[in-house]
Amino acid sequence: MFLPILCIFSLILSSHAAVQDFCVGDLAAPEGPAGYSCKKPAKVTVDDFVFSGLGMAGNTSNLIKAAVTPAFAPQFPGLNGLGLSIARLDLAVGGVVPMHTHPGGSEVLLVTQGSICAGFISSANAVYFKTLKKGDIMIFPQGLLHFQVNGGGIPSTAFVSFSSPQPGLQILDYALFANDLPTELVVQTTFLDAAVVKKLKAVLGGTN
Amino acid sequence: MFLPILCIFSLILSSHAAVQDFCVGDLAAPEGPAGYSCKKPAKVTVDDFVFSGLGMAGNTSNLIKAAVTPAFAPQFPGLNGLGLSIARLDLAVGGVVPMHTHPGGSEVLLVTQGSICAGFISSANAVYFKTLKKGDIMIFPQGLLHFQVNGGGIPSTAFVSFSSPQPGLQILDYALFANDLPTELVVQTTFLDAAVVKKLKAVLGGTN
Amino acid sequence: MFLPILCIFSLILSSHAAVQDFCVGDLAAPEGPAGYSCKKPAKVTVDDFVFSGLGMAGNTSNLIKAAVTPAFAPQFPGLNGLGLSIARLDLAVGGVVPMHTHPGGSEVLLVTQGSICAGFISSANAVYFKTLKKGDIMIFPQGLLHFQVNGGGIPSTAFVSFSSPQPGLQILDYALFANDLPTELVVQTTFLDAAVVKKLKAVLGGTN
Amino acid sequence: MFLPILCIFSLILSSHAAVQDFCVGDLAAPEGPAGYSCKKPAKVTVDDFVFSGLGMAGNTSNLIKAAVTPAFAPQFPGLNGLGLSIARLDLAVGGVVPMHTHPGGSEVLLVTQGSICAGFISSANAVYFKTLKKGDIMIFPQGLLHFQVNGGGIPSTAFVSFSSPQPGLQILDYALFANDLPTELVVQTTFLDAAVVKKLKAVLGGTN
Amino acid sequence: MFLPILCIFSLILSSHAAVQDFCVGDLAAPEGPAGYSCKKPAKVTVDDFVFSGLGMAGNTSNLIKAAVTPAFAPQFPGLNGLGLSIARLDLAVGGVVPMHTHPGGSEVLLVTQGSICAGFISSANAVYFKTLKKGDIMIFPQGLLHFQVNGGGIPSTAFVSFSSPQPGLQILDYALFANDLPTELVVQTTFLDAAVVKKLKAVLGGTN
Amino acid sequence: MFLPILCIFSLILSSHAAVQDFCVGDLAAPEGPAGYSCKKPAKVTVDDFVFSGLGMAGNTSNLIKAAVTPAFAPQFPGLNGLGLSIARLDLAVGGVVPMHTHPGGSEVLLVTQGSICAGFISSANAVYFKTLKKGDIMIFPQGLLHFQVNGGGIPSTAFVSFSSPQPGLQILDYALFANDLPTELVVQTTFLDAAVVKKLKAVLGGTN
Repeated sequence: MFLPILCIFSLILSSHAAVQDFCVGDLAAPEGPAGYSCKKPAKVTVDDFVFSGLGMAGNTSNLIKAAVTPAFAPQFPGLNGLGLSIARLDLAVGGVVPMHTHPGGSEVLLVTQGSICAGFISSANAVYFKTLKKGDIMIFPQGLLHFQVNGGGIPSTAFVSFSSPQPGLQILDYALFANDLPTELVVQTTFLDAAVVKKLKAVLGGTN
Repeated sequence: MFLPILCIFSLILSSHAAVQDFCVGDLAAPEGPAGYSCKKPAKVTVDDFVFSGLGMAGNTSNLIKAAVTPAFAPQFPGLNGLGLSIARLDLAVGGVVPMHTHPGGSEVLLVTQGSICAGFISSANAVYFKTLKKGDIMIFPQGLLHFQVNGGGIPSTAFVSFSSPQPGLQILDYALFANDLPTELVVQTTFLDAAVVKKLKAVLGGTN
Repeated sequence: MFLPILCIFSLILSSHAAVQDFCVGDLAAPEGPAGYSCKKPAKVTVDDFVFSGLGMAGNTSNLIKAAVTPAFAPQFPGLNGLGLSIARLDLAVGGVVPMHTHPGGSEVLLVTQGSICAGFISSANAVYFKTLKKGDIMIFPQGLLHFQVNGGGIPSTAFVSFSSPQPGLQILDYALFANDLPTELVVQTTFLDAAVVKKLKAVLGGTN
Repeated sequence: MFLPILCIFSLILSSHAAVQDFCVGDLAAPEGPAGYSCKKPAKVTVDDFVFSGLGMAGNTSNLIKAAVTPAFAPQFPGLNGLGLSIARLDLAVGGVVPMHTHPGGSEVLLVTQGSICAGFISSANAVYFKTLKKGDIMIFPQGLLHFQVNGGGIPSTAFVSFSSPQPGLQILDYALFANDLPTELVVQTTFLDAAVVKKLKAVLGGTN
Repeated sequence: MFLPILCIFSLILSSHAAVQDFCVGDLAAPEGPAGYSCKKPAKVTVDDFVFSGLGMAGNTSNLIKAAVTPAFAPQFPGLNGLGLSIARLDLAVGGVVPMHTHPGGSEVLLVTQGSICAGFISSANAVYFKTLKKGDIMIFPQGLLHFQVNGGGIPSTAFVSFSSPQPGLQILDYALFANDLPTELVVQTTFLDAAVVKKLKAVLGGTN
Repeated sequence: MFLPILCIFSLILSSHAAVQDFCVGDLAAPEGPAGYSCKKPAKVTVDDFVFSGLGMAGNTSNLIKAAVTPAFAPQFPGLNGLGLSIARLDLAVGGVVPMHTHPGGSEVLLVTQGSICAGFISSANAVYFKTLKKGDIMIFPQGLLHFQVNGGGIPSTAFVSFSSPQPGLQILDYALFANDLPTELVVQTTFLDAAVVKKLKAVLGGTN
């Protein structure tokens, strides 16, 4: 006897396209300033909203003894247009995430194992850093230089959330030394000696 | 003698594409997080900005004696990207718009005929409701549960405006009982008895 | 036996200030770029969300035979921060709302009585106008010149919704002729003759 | 010899107020639609950006065997204005976070211990749910009904991130049954029997 | 020996598409409410971020002795999605930029040569105008009528910045007199005499 | 005979507070995430919208032979809430603006005298740089490292516009070497030798 209710909102509900609760990214379609084009709603399944890539530790067998595993919109297109993303950070003993920025979003770091010494520097040149223990969270405002260093004698893990599905990542040493930016320009704009610049370019794969 | 003025802004005015006063939605083109792709300006006419679908009362010959007629971006693509939309609400005597939310926008309701008892519940669990007479307007903030009930002995009509061209609509009973969400999960997450859930699933067309 | 549930979300629910579903404007407190300061939640009642000022026709006994009654944030502070507002428009026979813009929001007009000839002009200088009948809605994109004229032999009424709680209103003739903008500057920037400017300044109360 | 550089940006750097990298909330000062007023930069320390309240499991000794511990702007004012927040969720064996919405933000859930069956329902009434294992993340788009249930035989923990510093929380059963919303209105707007409503009002502390 | 660092962020850096620092507009692809689709990052070069079209004075050999040269997103697609744009303004002796608005953005004008008398009128009908000298800057808030007049005996140049890549431009006289808006409607909505309207329509190329 | 028009919009126009065309910052009142509180409209004059501080070259008699003169909201409060700002850049022969970012906004640089070699590095580690001549403009997207170097044998001047009234400024060498960030942390997070760090700390006034 309740069946006629089905007719009421038929105009709204008849087409999945009538609503935009979400916009799962279609990485093959055009991208605009607000993000990727949306996958057709009829093709969206629960698996578009679930991502299992953060379950395992990244490989920290490298010089900085650290690994970052992102779940940004390109890896996890369900986040497209929703205003947040997440990543996993693994730091072996002695591990370091070098000085870097996220041009497109603010970050909150949550320590889930070990301890991490983390900090950032403000536009006003003030330094804010602290050693975080398991369960602590710390904020890194958008666009500011920050870093994380394993603060103890055991491997550490953290999960970082961002206020954008595509926060970006600019690692300082990479930006300065791992591309073809001419040594002379690096010297002029950083006050570093040419010898220092050339040495770091060599180890990081930079040219010019 | 004023004709040379025609040349001044020629770079700006020579191409209709130079401005984006509006972005009439092209429902067949890719959709992104900010809305539909824009129809080519050269094909836009005044009829893209006028919609006549709200002029007649919706059919209230149904159990809840109510009808909602939306003019959201999918029905009225001229609204695409402009940050607002509108809908018509008809309530026969005894009519009810059941508890629902609009995940994507705030709402203002204007009573144009009859009287309507309307209300919403806040995140802090406070209840705000009142019987509105013709000419009254009432606010329902984004995402909060709200309802409208015909408050008198004559049919009522209202027009509702939204702060988004695609505010969405989630009707509580539909979300809980008119799809394939397993009865066991509904019971666990609502504190309702399985018998109640199954009964409502039966009348609303739900399964599982 | 269900009572312990009350404890679960106590941290969230213990303080009304924990959520910002709405921000009813406190007109006496500081205003910022995003709107008025919020009234203390404990002082908010349903009457902050209901406004009855649009129920009666405005007084159209004036030269343009028109009246506009706004429910913007300053008149209806419950709209503060919610991204929309509304106003009532009454047009006697022969009534006109002169050429104007809303610098801060897009508009949708709904005719509820009579008929209205309405139109706007785009940045690309295209004209879009139509005579609307009862029940029709029409869009006026943000910041563009537009107008409404009673289109028939009976009084007309419309309700207009905006995509901002403070859309603003700049009436062309007022901006040009009803203030102290020097006649010489008006002449230089409008191509109108000084005599025309002075005449309109006289009738609209302008000086200089 | 490099010291003169100190003078160059003196106009910018002389006042901490010259930049707004962050806006640590001053809970005692006026709040606006965009958030709390900012604490004076000179009084900001690293402790404004670190929060330790999520390190311990919440108390799940209650009927639903669940606890939610938020770090939203009111608990962690450093998040004010930064566009994200976080919370901890503990679910004992058999624990449930009942059906609820966040009117102000989208959510990503990360399982850090145990397993959780989680799901949401869209505006188009489609159901998306899955049992998540440790390390999995799942998206719940803004304003949509969703739930979490402990999916296994051991206690589970999750951390949830939001795209807003004040996402809000509306728990369905609380909104319907734990306040003074009249039973008659609940019955009319939910299709539940009065007896069911009165029973749930009794256990959840509702009146009327 | 530093080479292993190259592996760390490989997931992030392996695909240029992983980040959206910018979205150079592809004018041939679909446009949405947030702007043009993005050019493929692999095809972006420094020349997408550099524009040389503002280096020469525009041609002021016209009746109003003025020229505007825009670098908006359609002319300079690198600005797409970045929230700002720029234009050059040249005013010969006696030159005038007639009364106009930018519906989509606020403006800051910088005088780089000569002097300019500039002003705007607010929604509250207040007039703000001043004669600016070389090096002065002046604000024109979004959507408000404003004008610029050469204030001295030598040619003047200014550069104007906007808070949008597509601010739009509506020149009052063009909107009223240079299209097919019927004379009768112009008369009704501006209080100008039909003779005045017809005369200006004639010189500006309008019809009807 | 036109005087009655004055009554029509009286409700709107009677109070200056009815509109928010602009929000001139009151630096002494509370600041929120969206900017400063607004100066009372009655106290606003044209001088709140005009700034003369960019008319003179900054003092480049320093080691880097450069000067930056900002007109951000703290210096020019009329920009508060309007979404853009501007600054002047003077580069003597050999002058350099060292590597820096603006965490809060994108930038467009306009060369008005001389020539400037400018560039930025993307999140994807690509380098975009070019020597700009007088009249050229170049884009620096939000949050990315960039620099400007005088490219010729004569002093150069540029004006830079930003997509925010408070874009912020983080100069790399200052952030690393001109504060109390411990040398050990700088070494760990930059791959620079301690000797290099200590030397730069000494010349830039850093400690620890």
